[in-house]
Parts: sequence; C-alpha cells; structure tokens
Amino acid sequence: MRIVKLSQESRQNLLENLLKRSPGNYGQYQDTVQEIVDRVKTEGDKALFELTAKFDWDGISKENVKVTEEEVREAYDTIDPALTETIRKSLKNIRDYHEKQKQYSWFDTTPEGTMLGQKVTPLASAGVYVPGGKAVYPSSVLMNIVPAKIAGVDHVVMCTPCNKEGKVNPAVLVAAKEAGADEVYKVGGAQAIAAMAFGTESIPKVDKITGPGNIFVALAKKAVSGFVSIDSIAGPSEILVLADETANPRYVAADLLSQAEHDEMASAILVTTSMELAEKVSAEVDGFVAVLSRKEIIQKSLDNYGYILVADSLDDAIETVNMIASEHLEIVTKNPFEAMMKVRNAGAIFLGEYSSEPLGDYFAGPNHILPTNGTARFFSPVSVDDFVKKSSIIYYSREALEKVHKDIEYFAKAEQLTAHANSIAVRFEQKED
Amino acid sequence: MRIVKLSQESRQNLLENLLKRSPGNYGQYQDTVQEIVDRVKTEGDKALFELTAKFDWDGISKENVKVTEEEVREAYDTIDPALTETIRKSLKNIRDYHEKQKQYSWFDTTPEGTMLGQKVTPLASAGVYVPGGKAVYPSSVLMNIVPAKIAGVDHVVMCTPCNKEGKVNPAVLVAAKEAGADEVYKVGGAQAIAAMAFGTESIPKVDKITGPGNIFVALAKKAVSGFVSIDSIAGPSEILVLADETANPRYVAADLLSQAEHDEMASAILVTTSMELAEKVSAEVDGFVAVLSRKEIIQKSLDNYGYILVADSLDDAIETVNMIASEHLEIVTKNPFEAMMKVRNAGAIFLGEYSSEPLGDYFAGPNHILPTNGTARFFSPVSVDDFVKKSSIIYYSREALEKVHKDIEYFAKAEQLTAHANSIAVRFEQKED
Repeated sequence: MRIVKLSQESRQNLLENLLKRSPGNYGQYQDTVQEIVDRVKTEGDKALFELTAKFDWDGISKENVKVTEEEVREAYDTIDPALTETIRKSLKNIRDYHEKQKQYSWFDTTPEGTMLGQKVTPLASAGVYVPGGKAVYPSSVLMNIVPAKIAGVDHVVMCTPCNKEGKVNPAVLVAAKEAGADEVYKVGGAQAIAAMAFGTESIPKVDKITGPGNIFVALAKKAVSGFVSIDSIAGPSEILVLADETANPRYVAADLLSQAEHDEMASAILVTTSMELAEKVSAEVDGFVAVLSRKEIIQKSLDNYGYILVADSLDDAIETVNMIASEHLEIVTKNPFEAMMKVRNAGAIFLGEYSSEPLGDYFAGPNHILPTNGTARFFSPVSVDDFVKKSSIIYYSREALEKVHKDIEYFAKAEQLTAHANSIAVRFEQKED
Repeated sequence: MRIVKLSQESRQNLLENLLKRSPGNYGQYQDTVQEIVDRVKTEGDKALFELTAKFDWDGISKENVKVTEEEVREAYDTIDPALTETIRKSLKNIRDYHEKQKQYSWFDTTPEGTMLGQKVTPLASAGVYVPGGKAVYPSSVLMNIVPAKIAGVDHVVMCTPCNKEGKVNPAVLVAAKEAGADEVYKVGGAQAIAAMAFGTESIPKVDKITGPGNIFVALAKKAVSGFVSIDSIAGPSEILVLADETANPRYVAADLLSQAEHDEMASAILVTTSMELAEKVSAEVDGFVAVLSRKEIIQKSLDNYGYILVADSLDDAIETVNMIASEHLEIVTKNPFEAMMKVRNAGAIFLGEYSSEPLGDYFAGPNHILPTNGTARFFSPVSVDDFVKKSSIIYYSREALEKVHKDIEYFAKAEQLTAHANSIAVRFEQKED
C-alpha cells in the first residue's frame, strides 16, 4: 500500500480522489433510469414484466412474480442448516440492539391547559431492495428488515432479482423469512424501485424504500424520492483505521483488506502516528493479498483508493478522520475511548484491538448499512428512526389561548396574513365587542 | 365551498387533484436549475454574483454579500419594537419545545466485555434558506434556526435574497439575530442553495440545508441532495379539519381560510360527519372571504383545492384523514383525543376548539415546517433530529469475540467474503494452530 506523509496537500488529494466515487456523479444514466421509472409508473405490471424479462428472467408473469411458501421451504432445504443457525444467532443480536433505538411518543402539559407533544407512528409499509448477481448478502437482508419490523411497520415487502431460471438466492430467501419479510417479489433494478414507489397491479406501493443496489437502483431511488421516502444512496464501502504504535499490524492489515475486497471502488485507509506501524502494515497487506481469494479486486481497490497516511500527532490524525468521515472507523490506539470522544464523523466506530469491522457486518447487532462517501458528516446508520415518523401534538384550552391571543394576532398581521389573525380573533370576538 | 358526499370515488378524485401540486412534478425546470447549480459549483462567487446581479441586486460583490452588524442594528431600528417583543415570546416557546426533542448518546454493556451504543453528534454547520419577495415570514426564520441551535450546530448561516437596493427585509434580519444565526448572506434562488452545498469564496459549505423556497429553490435542493443533507421539499400549505356536529362552524371556517390565504395552490379541506355543519361552514366561509384582505388568493385556492367532505361515520372520516395525510390537521370533535389515537398520518395535530392552526404557526412551540402533499405518511416535522447524526459504537473484548468468532467467520465465508473471515480469524490464529 502507498505510504504518504500527512499534509494539507496529501489530505486534499486523498479527499478529492475519494469523492470521485460519489453516487452524486452518476448523472450520465439519469435519463435511462427516468424513462424506466416513468414507464413503470404509467404502465404498471406490463412495463415491470417486460423489463424483468429483458434483464433477468423471460418467464416472469403475474402468477409467479411473488415468491411462494413452497419456494421458501425449498430454500431452507437447499442451504446448509448451519447457515440458518448462524443467521438466527445474528438476528437475535440485531433485534436486541435495534429494540434499544425505539423512540416513544411524549407529551408535556401545563396546568393552564396546554399539552404539547410528539406522536411517533410507524410507517405503514416498507420495501427492501436486495441486489442479485454474484454478491449475495443475506446479512444485508437482516439489516434492512429488522429495523422496520422493530419500528412496527405492518407490511414489509422485499424485491430482489431472480436468475435466468426464475430462482431467488436461497440464503436471501431464508434471511428474509427469518427477519420477517411479509412478501418477496422476483424483480430487480430501477423497475423494482419504481414498482414499490408507485405500486403496480402485483407490487404494493410502499411508504419507504431502503437497501443497496447498483447505479441504476441508486438513480431510481433518487428519482422516486419525495413520492416515497428513501434511505441514503450508498456508495462503495470504506474502512478507515486510526492506529498508533500500540496496534497489531497484522490485525490492522487484515481489517483494511476486509473492506478492500468488496469491490474495486472500495477504499481502505490507515491513518497512523507511527511510521513503523505504517511499514509493517504495508508488508502484512502484501502477505495477505497473495493468499486471499479475492486478490484481484483487493489489489485494484488498494491501487485506486488505498492509503496509509502518517501523521505527526494523534490530533492531526483525528482531524483527518473527521474530514474523511468514513463509513467504518476502527480506533486502535492506547486509549481508543478517549480518541472516540474527539471523533465527529463516522458511520460506525469500532473500538480496540478485538472489535474488527466484520464483527459489525455480521454479528454485534448495530446496523451495517452506514453512510458512505463522506456523508457521515450528516447521515446516520439505518435505524428504527428510519421507519417511524412523527406528528406534533398541540392542545390549548380557551384560557391558555386567551392569554396569548393578541401576540399571535399581532405576529400574523406583521406577516400580512390576516386570515391567520382572524382565525384566532374569531374565538374572542364576543368578549372584545 | 363545494360540499361533496364522501365516497371511494370522490376521495380518489380529491387525492388525485391534490397530488397535482406535488413538487415531484417540477421536472420542466430541472435542466435550468442543474445548469445554475453546476455553474456555482465550478465558478464559485463569480457565478453566484452574476446570477444575483441578474435576479436580485446588481450591486452585489464580495464586499457586501454578507450582512453587517450595522445592517442588523438598522433592522432593529426599522421594525416596530412590539414585533421584536413578540418574536422573543414566541422564540422562548419554540426553544422550550425543541429542547425536549434532544436525543442523547447511549450505550449498553455486558460483563463479557461488550459495549454497544450510539453516539449523537450535532452537524458542524447548517444553512437556512429564507425566501424573499412579498411573502416575508420571520416566523419561519425562527423555526429553521432554533432546532439547529438546540441540536448544537456550531455554525448556522442564512441566505435570503435582497431587494433591488441590496436590502434584506428587516423583520427577517431581526428574527435571524434573535434565533442565533451566525451569518446572513444576501443571495437567493438556486444559486444560493448551490453556494451553501459546495461553498464559494464568500459562502461557507454547510452540512445541511433547510428552509422553504420557490420551484427553483426546491429543484436546487433536490439537485444537491446527497452532497449535503436537505430537509424535505415543501409543497403548498394544507389544512384539514376533522369535525363533528359539536364543532363551531365559524371557527372551522376561519381556520380553513387561514391556510387558503397562503397561495392559490394551498388546500383547505373539511371532513365532517355532519351535513348541517358542512352547510354552516360553507356559509361562514363566504362571509369571511368577502372581508378578508387576501380574498383573491383565498377564492382561487378554495376553487382549486377546497373541499367539504361529508362522511357517514367518524371512522370513514378518519380513514380519509389518514389517506390525505395533511400538513395540518385540526380535530374538533366531541372527543378529539380519542380520534387522535386513530390518526396515523398528519404533520401536526391540533386538538379541540381552541387549538387553532395559527397557534402552531406562530406561538405554541412545535415546528411549523411540516411535511406536505401526503408526505406525512413518511416524513416528520423539522426537528432537532434533523441537525444531529449518529455513529454506532462497537466494542468487544478478546474474550467476547472469542465466543462468537467462528459464527462470524462462517457467515462471512457463506457470503464468499474471505477477507472478512480472515480479519476475524487472524486474531485467534495462534490458538488454533
């Protein structure tokens, strides 16, 4: 891996390089995707099935688009029962963690007869997108469905493309069933997103669409945003390790590679105060790459977006961490908790030598769908919050309103909104005669 | 106002008519706006000032784009001191309410040496957009800035267009100062949104942009979404009153008009179980319209999007309320609290005879920036939540990881992610030799 001395210039170059991967730069496919979205919106199933026949399976029809109970049973029979067991263990942890995110409705009253509050209501329905293709991630199925179900969403549907024989990946089906998906549909791509956003004869319209996908899926989600709610558009995966001289270079190297293997656009960065560690990690990386099964992807990812930055001080290093705002941040320093207190921007923070990033991907419980590409500056991990919405609650008694009615009327008139003022004044007109 | 018997068909027609107002249908200006955004992104101040000179004030320059302390003092001297006092009273209530929305970081531990949690961090900066033109709303300035400040945002900037003489509305300036804006810039339109999203020589880049605006502002916010966070795109204002025979028709009529006066696209709907109330409200509306200052706007709004729906039962009425998912909902029934329990979708819910909608616009404390156009199905009022983001916190001790490491490795391998498995395995390799 390239070792670079941290400077304003090297950091700026790195930041600009990373931002090349932004899903905000996908503009060139926008018209194609908009066309697909518009077709599905107006033609419904007809367009959905034509597009699915073209890209995925030419046998698709109204009769077989929905995965049957029989197909789900087949999936359980197909996969290694040990995987079902592991999914269940992982699911328990994910559920336990997300339970703690639940927010409650609240209100506050005064004896003058006012009640103000906030009513929390789950969304009525949610749609989860799960990509097909070679990279099949049942763990992502769990991470999308659990927060929706814990939030109290009644109806969770899932869309995922099938293969040329009309089959959905069995591990994905088992994960969906275990997590509590109500229905699974064999459609994918921009057309699946449009179907969930606007509804078709076969696919129900949902309130929110979440889940990762390729560039067409990402653009389709952006196109339907506002008609439904969407999660943030995921960019390529990222890991940033903040380490000092106390870190184990072999562990750090292995962790960097765990994200580099995702795809050629993934980014793996070490920021360290120790040149010695930098060199050792670089050597360990070389050793691992030679033997790992996804070595071609890893090598390209490291060449494109892999960096080891050597900083003069831990504070400089942390400042850089905050500027990069990585999806995953591991802190492997003498006092990781203290360093964490200075971190403003990161999707998930893994503390200490044994909190390796894949622990969070698969098992610990926190959601692994995290803000990427610097958006941890303002976005949060997918959570139960994403599947509820709030309504303000306002109650004033006559006595309470009477005390303040002149102020409200005055403010409304100052904004030239006389009908606003009138709606308050009318309630006190007899008294003021 | 037109009185319509509630039926599946009449409801469907109403819903389709309302959706015509969706900001999702603004496509025709998209290219113009994208061009403005791209120009400001690449050319910075040069483009920003050229566009401002063209649309707002030809005297704009690097030296005068930022509102000075002197201009703020002038604004205080210009407006009625009573308005400053009213702003302060309102501000106190808004602050008190938003304080209660604060979320705290949390963590949970087990004696095996695991700690999981969620760290809540305020955004570093926020940009508030305030429209210029005839409709000048200092109350909206408060509603945008207060949640950001309560969340702990360090740097809150505001952009608002100035008039042909380079002056910003004084009431807006006073409200900004009172609410705690750190800087105010005299720029507006799509170019102001682009400036805050990407930064220019004069305008700092922010993490989140909120605030209403015209069609160009809305499209610009959509265009920069993902590069920064944005609030949801606001459509025209809406009020829905759910009332039974116990409601005072004069109050209901006045409240409907308080939203109808906003603009010709605004919508005012009464859903009632009482034909008698329907007729009385209609008559009261006619009486008020004749004397209100904004009668032309009100009449057009009522002709376009005003309805009185008469339902057979309260349950039918509430079902319709949930389908419309109005920005503002007033419940004026015998037992408004019980009706509220059945409401799933509404931006703000006003309960009882004296909780008139403008009370929420100006004074009670809850935010008046609310989801419009049916998006209350999935969006929430602007709140402190919008100005914080979360990071997951994950810590496992060696002992804790050791207990589960085989499950994690197994799951990773099942997803063909061998480098993920390796990053766990490497931590136990000596023991397993």
